[in-house]
Amino acid sequence: MLLTTKESKAQLNFSDLDQLTFPAEKHLKKLNEFIQSQVDNFEAEIQEVVSYCLKSGGKRLRALLLFYSGWTDETYVAEELVKAATVIEFIHLATLVHDDILDNADLRHNRSTVSERYGSAVAVLIGDAIFSQSLKLASEFPTVDVCAAVSQSTRRVCSGEIAQNFLKGNSNISIDDYYRIINQKTAELFRVSAYLGAHLSNYDKAFINAVEKFGEHLGIAYQIYDDTTDIFGSEDKVGKTLGTDLAEGKITLPLILLGKKLNSLEKTNFNMNIFGNNSISIENIIPKLKELNIHTDVQHYFNKELKLANTALADFENLPPVKHLLNLSNYLNGQMKEILN
Amino acid sequence: MLLTTKESKAQLNFSDLDQLTFPAEKHLKKLNEFIQSQVDNFEAEIQEVVSYCLKSGGKRLRALLLFYSGWTDETYVAEELVKAATVIEFIHLATLVHDDILDNADLRHNRSTVSERYGSAVAVLIGDAIFSQSLKLASEFPTVDVCAAVSQSTRRVCSGEIAQNFLKGNSNISIDDYYRIINQKTAELFRVSAYLGAHLSNYDKAFINAVEKFGEHLGIAYQIYDDTTDIFGSEDKVGKTLGTDLAEGKITLPLILLGKKLNSLEKTNFNMNIFGNNSISIENIIPKLKELNIHTDVQHYFNKELKLANTALADFENLPPVKHLLNLSNYLNGQMKEILN
Repeated sequence: MLLTTKESKAQLNFSDLDQLTFPAEKHLKKLNEFIQSQVDNFEAEIQEVVSYCLKSGGKRLRALLLFYSGWTDETYVAEELVKAATVIEFIHLATLVHDDILDNADLRHNRSTVSERYGSAVAVLIGDAIFSQSLKLASEFPTVDVCAAVSQSTRRVCSGEIAQNFLKGNSNISIDDYYRIINQKTAELFRVSAYLGAHLSNYDKAFINAVEKFGEHLGIAYQIYDDTTDIFGSEDKVGKTLGTDLAEGKITLPLILLGKKLNSLEKTNFNMNIFGNNSISIENIIPKLKELNIHTDVQHYFNKELKLANTALADFENLPPVKHLLNLSNYLNGQMKEILN
Repeated sequence: MLLTTKESKAQLNFSDLDQLTFPAEKHLKKLNEFIQSQVDNFEAEIQEVVSYCLKSGGKRLRALLLFYSGWTDETYVAEELVKAATVIEFIHLATLVHDDILDNADLRHNRSTVSERYGSAVAVLIGDAIFSQSLKLASEFPTVDVCAAVSQSTRRVCSGEIAQNFLKGNSNISIDDYYRIINQKTAELFRVSAYLGAHLSNYDKAFINAVEKFGEHLGIAYQIYDDTTDIFGSEDKVGKTLGTDLAEGKITLPLILLGKKLNSLEKTNFNMNIFGNNSISIENIIPKLKELNIHTDVQHYFNKELKLANTALADFENLPPVKHLLNLSNYLNGQMKEILN
């Protein structure tokens, strides 16, 4: 069986970060404890599978964004932020469990995926159960705000994934199409994480709008980074399998930009050969990507998003969250540079 | 390709019912209008698939249970009941879309399933999107009650489905196992439908508890009826494919009761041959079921549940909902008699 790994996507790891730059140790510890404690809230017959899912960990990037958006000071960990971060991490986990079925992925973070270990039927249903429990937690807040925000975001995430699916193998996808898809499938959950953090910490409307904008653009930048890693990542640093998006016919920014620069004969070959054709590996197109300087173009789009993210916070630099949020975008910036240089 | 149809399960049709016995015409009309109007609330790129899903209709049994549990009088259709019924019907629809992937079903209600028409990837995601929209609607109520009730119920429904999946092909399943599974996978959504109807119409706690009990037992009886149809249903009346549960290795009450009555040699053959073995068709075991009078045993279990359902309402016979709820259980009783006689 062909082993498809998602490990290539698991490069960022915030738990290893310097606590001076990223002081969220207590927050992440409480989050992990709360997440683990949730196993008992599932019905007895599915606790083993849930426990397996929850052990997969993940980068907690959305949770960090939520904690920093609602930051007051580092000695105080508000319970509602921990609960809201769990809501978001559960939504994210449920989508990963479902994604791994759709992508036929066998490994994620060096462990068998749920669908590989328990079969795709159980994976569909356990994703549904984790999603349900996420909304159950969301309903434990005193008002309907959290439920409303999270359920609407999740619908958008699904729409983005479906749109991406409809366009698989289609090499005529425009940059606008790409942006609309990643805005829904990725940036939406970043945006709502930022919203929940600032909203639950009672920041005012203007700042909430600002962090939502920050979250949205950080999310787009993150997806560009993630797509870039799949093509330009070094196998030494990243893991083993690169080019999985390409193999699945998923069109990403570097490939769209390549398409725009190819001449018409090359474009014909490109259309015919690359998308959804497993026999063409990533190595075959890397020389062309380098020759046409695609990495510079990708960097340009990435920079633009990070700049929009940072600019959104410009009027609020004295508020406690801002320096941490800017550190988050600086960190992502550094990771992108490592991939492209 | 083997056509697996779910049509056998679509026998009950409340829209054809005599409006004197079941006066819910206005309610169902408003429900259908509201459901159709929801298409616009989904993102543009998925409206076609959503629209396809929503056209499948269905029996609206859970919606009727909700309307009758919150019944005040037939001239007044409360908007919140219509919205809550949509929440429930969307949850039910999302689980059907996901079920059809797991069961490799190609047809439901004589139309291609979503997974057959758009592929299983889209079916997983559209189920998720419909589920999300359901919770979004639930969050439009002034308090978190609807979100809390629905998300918790959905988690239980998934647990029941997963437990059933784990036990597929296992012929040692006990009646207790079966009851626990159908209580979660089916009766739970009936219970919460009844709860929402009575709760939103401001009936008092004692009556809410009573209709929840009614809903739960009606749900168990309905699942026994549904499982019985799959085995004893006449192909003329029901549709074409019977015995789909058997073919999928799904153990249902008639088969468990058969297992209990077989002698040990027969049981060995039964274990070896029946579960998960497509070459054994329903026709092969029907003579044995008849010889051992299994239909009488099934009727006994069914009657017990309907009696528990009806008894739960005994103290409230003067309240407007009760006669309609009793009509609902009488109707199901009549349908079961038709199958077994």
